[in-house]
Amino acid sequence: MRILILGGDGYLGWPTAMRFSDRGHEVHVVDNYLRRRAHEEVGSDTLVPILPSLLERAAAWKDVSGKEIGVTEGDLVDWELTTDIFRTFRPEAIVHYGEMPSAPYSMRDRDHAVFTQQNNVVNTLNVIYAIRDITPDAHLVKLGTMGEYGTPNIDIEEGFIEIRHKGREDYLPFPKLPGSMYHLSKVHDSHNIHFACRVWGMRATDLNQGVVYGIHTDQTRLDDRLMTRFDYDDVFGTALNRFCLQAVIGHPLTVYGKGGQTRGYLNIVDTMRCVELAVTNPADPGEMRVFNQFTEQFSVLELAQHVQKAGAEVGIDVRVEAIDNPRFELEEHYYNAAHTKLLDLGLKPHLLSETLIESMFAELERFKHRAIADHILPRDRWRPAVEAPSS
Amino acid sequence: MRILILGGDGYLGWPTAMRFSDRGHEVHVVDNYLRRRAHEEVGSDTLVPILPSLLERAAAWKDVSGKEIGVTEGDLVDWELTTDIFRTFRPEAIVHYGEMPSAPYSMRDRDHAVFTQQNNVVNTLNVIYAIRDITPDAHLVKLGTMGEYGTPNIDIEEGFIEIRHKGREDYLPFPKLPGSMYHLSKVHDSHNIHFACRVWGMRATDLNQGVVYGIHTDQTRLDDRLMTRFDYDDVFGTALNRFCLQAVIGHPLTVYGKGGQTRGYLNIVDTMRCVELAVTNPADPGEMRVFNQFTEQFSVLELAQHVQKAGAEVGIDVRVEAIDNPRFELEEHYYNAAHTKLLDLGLKPHLLSETLIESMFAELERFKHRAIADHILPRDRWRPAVEAPSS
Repeated sequence: MRILILGGDGYLGWPTAMRFSDRGHEVHVVDNYLRRRAHEEVGSDTLVPILPSLLERAAAWKDVSGKEIGVTEGDLVDWELTTDIFRTFRPEAIVHYGEMPSAPYSMRDRDHAVFTQQNNVVNTLNVIYAIRDITPDAHLVKLGTMGEYGTPNIDIEEGFIEIRHKGREDYLPFPKLPGSMYHLSKVHDSHNIHFACRVWGMRATDLNQGVVYGIHTDQTRLDDRLMTRFDYDDVFGTALNRFCLQAVIGHPLTVYGKGGQTRGYLNIVDTMRCVELAVTNPADPGEMRVFNQFTEQFSVLELAQHVQKAGAEVGIDVRVEAIDNPRFELEEHYYNAAHTKLLDLGLKPHLLSETLIESMFAELERFKHRAIADHILPRDRWRPAVEAPSS
Repeated sequence: MRILILGGDGYLGWPTAMRFSDRGHEVHVVDNYLRRRAHEEVGSDTLVPILPSLLERAAAWKDVSGKEIGVTEGDLVDWELTTDIFRTFRPEAIVHYGEMPSAPYSMRDRDHAVFTQQNNVVNTLNVIYAIRDITPDAHLVKLGTMGEYGTPNIDIEEGFIEIRHKGREDYLPFPKLPGSMYHLSKVHDSHNIHFACRVWGMRATDLNQGVVYGIHTDQTRLDDRLMTRFDYDDVFGTALNRFCLQAVIGHPLTVYGKGGQTRGYLNIVDTMRCVELAVTNPADPGEMRVFNQFTEQFSVLELAQHVQKAGAEVGIDVRVEAIDNPRFELEEHYYNAAHTKLLDLGLKPHLLSETLIESMFAELERFKHRAIADHILPRDRWRPAVEAPSS
């Protein structure tokens, strides 16, 4: 199958490209290195060193596997570039990771909010229109986020909900309560994609993913040159990966507020499998499927305790420190999200264990000298001060 | 009260500005003439001639009423311009009509879709951030559209719905099924505004307006120089206004498809009153109110029959012609939308009557020599042809 991977330089994009290539698919990756530039902007960097460009990564992959991955270095906000790729490669499936993925980045100020929404909404519109005009039978597999739902007081379903109201009923998009300008951009994308399915008969699968953790997939393990990025900083890092790095460098685990914030989590290995299941079992024409892509729910405090316990087993003394929450979110709430559709397709979850955390510790030890401790504590607050009137 | 009117050159913006000015409020209008330029682009024009610029309109208003309306000619996508206006004028209420308002325009092609979403989303983000940073107590009165809801198979509530699900309940945003790239932009705005209310404590009222008809308000009647624009063309015209013009020039009324498409409608005089009720009864800090702003529901065919009947009363032979529907929409469907919140605030509806239609005929007679008959039939289709592969 011809599979186009958008955002192919990212934490998940690069391992996804190698996995599909390994399975014998024809793979083309696109990336504009936005993530690398944004790290430079905020002063952080991936803990695990990665090769300087996708061309070099693809060359290393060829060297190790004998297989080719096609590369375009460019920006999907550029319509000419997008249509050139679609006309030349004629993808059968598009795996779309190509968005600015950070809530704190989007919440820095007005410029970052506008940039995030514009970048994500426009490049996804370009992809939708390229599919419509050039490869209408292609299947869009779009990375969404569980964060689109927020924390409603009812069970979260997979994208849609049967609503009975005043004696009538309909199956409608699940209401969304996104928690940042970034999460809002994903909600906008979901509405645009749903429209394209309803009106143009596009096939789409929206993967509302939980928080991903882990360092390795089957392919990144083959050679250090094939490793994927690992972010732990306040802007791009996420809970479990950050906690593991904090444990290894002797930094207290930074739990925001009460730590009762509960979310879905999954191992990077399961992300690979979920995306593969979505691609190899495509949506029907006109269908927008939504899969909630995670395997377990944890509160932030539970995660910290897992890391603490794993630390104790290998002789690391891990402290947990509650810090003032920079975000605006409920710190204690109901949370129960459905996630059966990927299991129905055959997903066999790799659940979180102390053994897995210990293996992450061991791998992070190799790179901990690269950690930038100044960029762990949050700087961007959801509620900044109001400007004083000049008069 | 200091009231900022965004999109103050438009069909509704200009009469709103005059009305608030007439009531003794301090009014400032902003417009970048996007609507005028888009008409030039598609080859259409307002039937009723309007003065060439807001400066001239404000001067005419001063001449007639003795009252001042402040004017900024500029684009709210420009953050510097937006903040300058907020810092200088320090609005207490912002009435936001300042968006690209046409579904057919947004559906022309990829460029128009991207432009519409970018323009509408970014300028509204600028307004939200300007309120947050400069005038946090100001009340945003944002024009949304009933088209955000689409035609679900359940009753449409005012913005939010109580959902009982698996033994639990929550009051959540009403699910949206928007029918064009333009309507999608309004859904995106609604989510962004809701976020600003939840996280920053902004006050907002989202007016999900139905289709507006009519020519005159108390102020436009005072002098021909104060009249507002009147659009009947395929891109910017809307159902009843277009039908009235068609009747007057002897063109068959163009009903798209079966004509069972049911929507909410209201008289422009009631729009004025609704906006005034929203402004003078502001939302609380942190509250996002949604009012469904219309007074009656009609199917397109019912509207055409009203116009036909009014025509018969004044001796005009009006024909109705079903034409192939350029849109993608249900032509027969359930539709029942709540609209009690504005009535509760004191709205006294001006319902549609043959007498009203006959008075529109009389007024349109004065300007019918300006009608461009070539721009009445729809050109932009919701489902265009697919590009053939070059190989």
